[in-house]
Amino acid sequence: MNYTFSPDPNDFWTQRIRQVMDRMIPLQLSILKDEAPDTEPSHAIENFRIAAGLATGEFYGYVFQDSDVGKWIESASYSLMIRPDEVLEKEIDALVDLIEKAQLPDGYLNTYFTVKEPGKRWTNLEECHELYCAGHLMEGAAAYFEATGKRKFLDIMCRMADHIDTVIGPEEGKIHGLPGHPEVEIGLLRLYRTTGNERYLKLAEYFINERGKEPNFFDLERQQRNGAEHFKGFHMNKKTYMQAHKPIREQEEAVGHSVRAMYLYTAAAQIAKETEDDTLKAAVFRLWDNIVNKKMYITGGFGATTWGEAFMRNYELPNDTAYAETCASVGAMFFGQRMLKLKRDGKTADIMEQVLYNGLLSGMSLEADRFFYVNPLEVVQALAGKENEYEHVLGTRPKWFACACCPPNLSRLITSLPSYAYEEAEDGVVIHQYLGGSVSTNKADFSLKTSYPWEGSLCWKVSAKEAFSLFVRIPGWTEKWGAFLDGKEIRKLPEDGYLQLDISEGTHELMLDLTLRPRRFYAHPKIRANAGCAAFMYGPLVYCFEGVDNPEPLAELRVSDGLPVMKAFDETLLHGVKPMEIQGKRYKMAGDSLYSETRPEAENVTLQAIPYYAWANREAKDMRVWMTEE
Amino acid sequence: MNYTFSPDPNDFWTQRIRQVMDRMIPLQLSILKDEAPDTEPSHAIENFRIAAGLATGEFYGYVFQDSDVGKWIESASYSLMIRPDEVLEKEIDALVDLIEKAQLPDGYLNTYFTVKEPGKRWTNLEECHELYCAGHLMEGAAAYFEATGKRKFLDIMCRMADHIDTVIGPEEGKIHGLPGHPEVEIGLLRLYRTTGNERYLKLAEYFINERGKEPNFFDLERQQRNGAEHFKGFHMNKKTYMQAHKPIREQEEAVGHSVRAMYLYTAAAQIAKETEDDTLKAAVFRLWDNIVNKKMYITGGFGATTWGEAFMRNYELPNDTAYAETCASVGAMFFGQRMLKLKRDGKTADIMEQVLYNGLLSGMSLEADRFFYVNPLEVVQALAGKENEYEHVLGTRPKWFACACCPPNLSRLITSLPSYAYEEAEDGVVIHQYLGGSVSTNKADFSLKTSYPWEGSLCWKVSAKEAFSLFVRIPGWTEKWGAFLDGKEIRKLPEDGYLQLDISEGTHELMLDLTLRPRRFYAHPKIRANAGCAAFMYGPLVYCFEGVDNPEPLAELRVSDGLPVMKAFDETLLHGVKPMEIQGKRYKMAGDSLYSETRPEAENVTLQAIPYYAWANREAKDMRVWMTEE
Repeated sequence: MNYTFSPDPNDFWTQRIRQVMDRMIPLQLSILKDEAPDTEPSHAIENFRIAAGLATGEFYGYVFQDSDVGKWIESASYSLMIRPDEVLEKEIDALVDLIEKAQLPDGYLNTYFTVKEPGKRWTNLEECHELYCAGHLMEGAAAYFEATGKRKFLDIMCRMADHIDTVIGPEEGKIHGLPGHPEVEIGLLRLYRTTGNERYLKLAEYFINERGKEPNFFDLERQQRNGAEHFKGFHMNKKTYMQAHKPIREQEEAVGHSVRAMYLYTAAAQIAKETEDDTLKAAVFRLWDNIVNKKMYITGGFGATTWGEAFMRNYELPNDTAYAETCASVGAMFFGQRMLKLKRDGKTADIMEQVLYNGLLSGMSLEADRFFYVNPLEVVQALAGKENEYEHVLGTRPKWFACACCPPNLSRLITSLPSYAYEEAEDGVVIHQYLGGSVSTNKADFSLKTSYPWEGSLCWKVSAKEAFSLFVRIPGWTEKWGAFLDGKEIRKLPEDGYLQLDISEGTHELMLDLTLRPRRFYAHPKIRANAGCAAFMYGPLVYCFEGVDNPEPLAELRVSDGLPVMKAFDETLLHGVKPMEIQGKRYKMAGDSLYSETRPEAENVTLQAIPYYAWANREAKDMRVWMTEE
Repeated sequence: MNYTFSPDPNDFWTQRIRQVMDRMIPLQLSILKDEAPDTEPSHAIENFRIAAGLATGEFYGYVFQDSDVGKWIESASYSLMIRPDEVLEKEIDALVDLIEKAQLPDGYLNTYFTVKEPGKRWTNLEECHELYCAGHLMEGAAAYFEATGKRKFLDIMCRMADHIDTVIGPEEGKIHGLPGHPEVEIGLLRLYRTTGNERYLKLAEYFINERGKEPNFFDLERQQRNGAEHFKGFHMNKKTYMQAHKPIREQEEAVGHSVRAMYLYTAAAQIAKETEDDTLKAAVFRLWDNIVNKKMYITGGFGATTWGEAFMRNYELPNDTAYAETCASVGAMFFGQRMLKLKRDGKTADIMEQVLYNGLLSGMSLEADRFFYVNPLEVVQALAGKENEYEHVLGTRPKWFACACCPPNLSRLITSLPSYAYEEAEDGVVIHQYLGGSVSTNKADFSLKTSYPWEGSLCWKVSAKEAFSLFVRIPGWTEKWGAFLDGKEIRKLPEDGYLQLDISEGTHELMLDLTLRPRRFYAHPKIRANAGCAAFMYGPLVYCFEGVDNPEPLAELRVSDGLPVMKAFDETLLHGVKPMEIQGKRYKMAGDSLYSETRPEAENVTLQAIPYYAWANREAKDMRVWMTEE
């Protein structure tokens, strides 16, 4: 699926994909090479050099440091699909050569165990991320093959997959094991889709089915290690932490580490589709329903607690201590994409849009050079990163992280957006998301000109190579919409959120007019944190109130009834946004006592909100999404 | 000051003081003796037996285990003042004999260092509570002398105080040190008041003045120990943890461990009075103002975070993760009592009443046999003690604690209530609190008959031995009141909250009629947690909504405008309370989505509240004090 930027430099996604390609991918490479100043050291490439015998020294970094290389190659490959770049391709080729040298004769590939604990391979699947790193390298290898047709990296990773298949599995003599952190399942499925080798599908399926069985592999494995731990205190994690408390088909509720959960569900959903497994399908539908209807922040953030970076119980969604890891939102996109293949449901794509424009995009600065790991919905700068309860909450985006999982996840997601926007399905082409610029599919080329998400007018030029069915998502949140094919109004209703159009061979113009309007939201009354509060959206964008635009402390402010008013698009503000204005009150206590029988006095104020994704790009000030109602 | 119970068995404090004397003090003794079944072991008396050479074995418990014995003797002494009890007195005498045997020839007394680390005395004042334990034993010794006139324990503790004076102080050759946990200052001041020995006052003053000086003693001491720690990681506490970040006269804001802070301020306030030190006086007024006007829960709880059991910044008062340690509320009573001697201000006594009837009294069950250490204002049973953020929050009162500071603090405070209710001042007698029952002072005997806090009618019989001035507090919260001396209405106004009456020799009847009414409270708008919420009081009592009386989850409930209605006193409910009724709404989401543009639907409900002190005495259900407004 080839993508070409929109000629409009203000096009929302063109701007962002370009920034990721021009800034973030080179920045990440310089970090992997330890050439970036003032950032957390990576050493990831140096680890490969040491493992390959090209350098001497010690392994440095997390046990999952190799995954950063896999994720970078994956992003860089998507970048190549969008815009060929010889220099970048040579960088990847050099890395692939290095990776090949680091691979052992039996196919084994992992710099930590090769360099640091050569005798300990496959003895700590629970903690040591060998399979996780392999999964990310497999994804990178498949992406690079797709981008360039070069098989070398793919072959390397197939050898590693084959090696895994000889070591782990249900057969006698093999380790009956599974990964502590799911990911290899996704990598194996990707290898399966690329090579057609069913052993990879079988192995992924094995890992999914093995999880949560009793006696629990992780217990047995730990006993065999005499309790030795890689991460001190890791044994204190409950089995729910890694979703290994019961078989996935019996899991009713999303629990534990939210990124592990998303990766697990992603693979499970794909396997349910590949194998037409109804019980597995039922499980992933149940889990998807649970995460989006019981455990999702309005921003599309997931994981309410820093303890275990995990989901909390249903409806427990604190705003100021939220974890809402960027990776979990990226993971929700992976999961959603697979769910859409199980059932083409506009509600699923609506949720993905909400994740994409808010809790995912907030993970990077407008310059794509600083990153959030944690995406809270309320920040008090005097507490964030200072008080123990708020240690994980940062008030400004750091340049990089020692545990650098989030930024590469953002870059591979954003550079692969075309595959989220368009789906080449068996029954036609599906437009799930509105991506300005051009995309070529087998059946047609699409070129979208739009000012979305600021304006609701979407105009596609469709050059059909043959007649086909086009399915266009109509967002569930739009009040009114109109669709026009070659100027003629389409008078049918969407089914499950998608409007089906018959496109004949040739060139067509498809116009979609969505009513974008400011919307006021109320939270489910069971969410303790949001009682008496409202939040605001415009189209797919969640808005937030920042101390830069409003008087602090924000706790003194309340919003009046009614809907906000959208202000004109301001291209000088936050790389171009439409701010939102709403009338409110500022409350002041008469006197200095903490509690009073007299209701605090209120003065009228006009409050201004900006899109959540754009917060923390100016002066470091307080922020909140949910505002107390007057 | 002799106290006699009210003949009315339903009298509020008679009921409670009697329970403490009849149940809690014997229970505590059985625990100290390791004779109580199903409770955390204490070993405190056994430690003394081992130190005295009467038993063999190891020291067991916290380094401050001795303090439990001091606090128990103190409570038991107050109990003897109320009701002589030969058996109890013999128990104390036996304990005093034991303590004497555990005292070393030089006066040193501490079972931990005598038994476990004999060579390490006075090497870790920061962590090891030697001075803290001494302080509690001094308080016990002074109380026992007051109760019985027996000097033995007093002499023991004077020898220990004299010993401390030879070891620590400003003079060359002495350790220029101070305690990590303030308390010895209070003990020394008590010895000073009992014996008149000014060295004890000087030493207490030295400790107060030394705190926060640079170079910091705790740093120097730790260096001398080569960094050795008693509590692992203790060095990670900031100096603010023990209020040693700057000299007390420069401290503007209450910070750090809230119990340490309260004990420090208590001693400082008393020294400011004893020495007429204006800069110290200014400091304690500033700190009192800060704790009551910036850092106090409406329940009279102090210390907003479990991290360091500490104060948070001004206005940061989360309800569900509140620490609000029972000991901190007890400490606020100590501090307030000293503040009243610096300035007779009804506002101070009003605050003390608020602390006493709510956040302090909630520390024990209605049967005085189970105890809270932490007193949150919102509890979700599914989270309390289960999720990491809520590990410190318990949904039911345990029988006892390994770190058993709170229950003995409650018992010594409640058995000494007469000294909080009546003050024998230079200019007369002051009635600060309304304590049913009889109290004899030098100038007069007082006997109060009342149904307070359920009814506002207070009737004292005053038998004056001579003419004197009586100062009676009129609560700042009462809307209307009337006072009648011998049937004649008093037509003067209170000054600083106290009504001054000239009492002639002979018998008089003083009637005070306070208007008790349900009151609705709003929090300062800077308190994030309470935005859009109301809380309710009746007289001095804060009310709360428990899941026993209201449909759960409580987050779905909101209170309508207006004032609650008091229901009739129900002696079968929670040992006799007046419940409160208020109209409210229960919100339900139409559909199952987390967020909706449609305001949740509301149905009318009648909500019932009970006094906060009485919560968690029925089935374990959720609870909250602050309710979202409709």
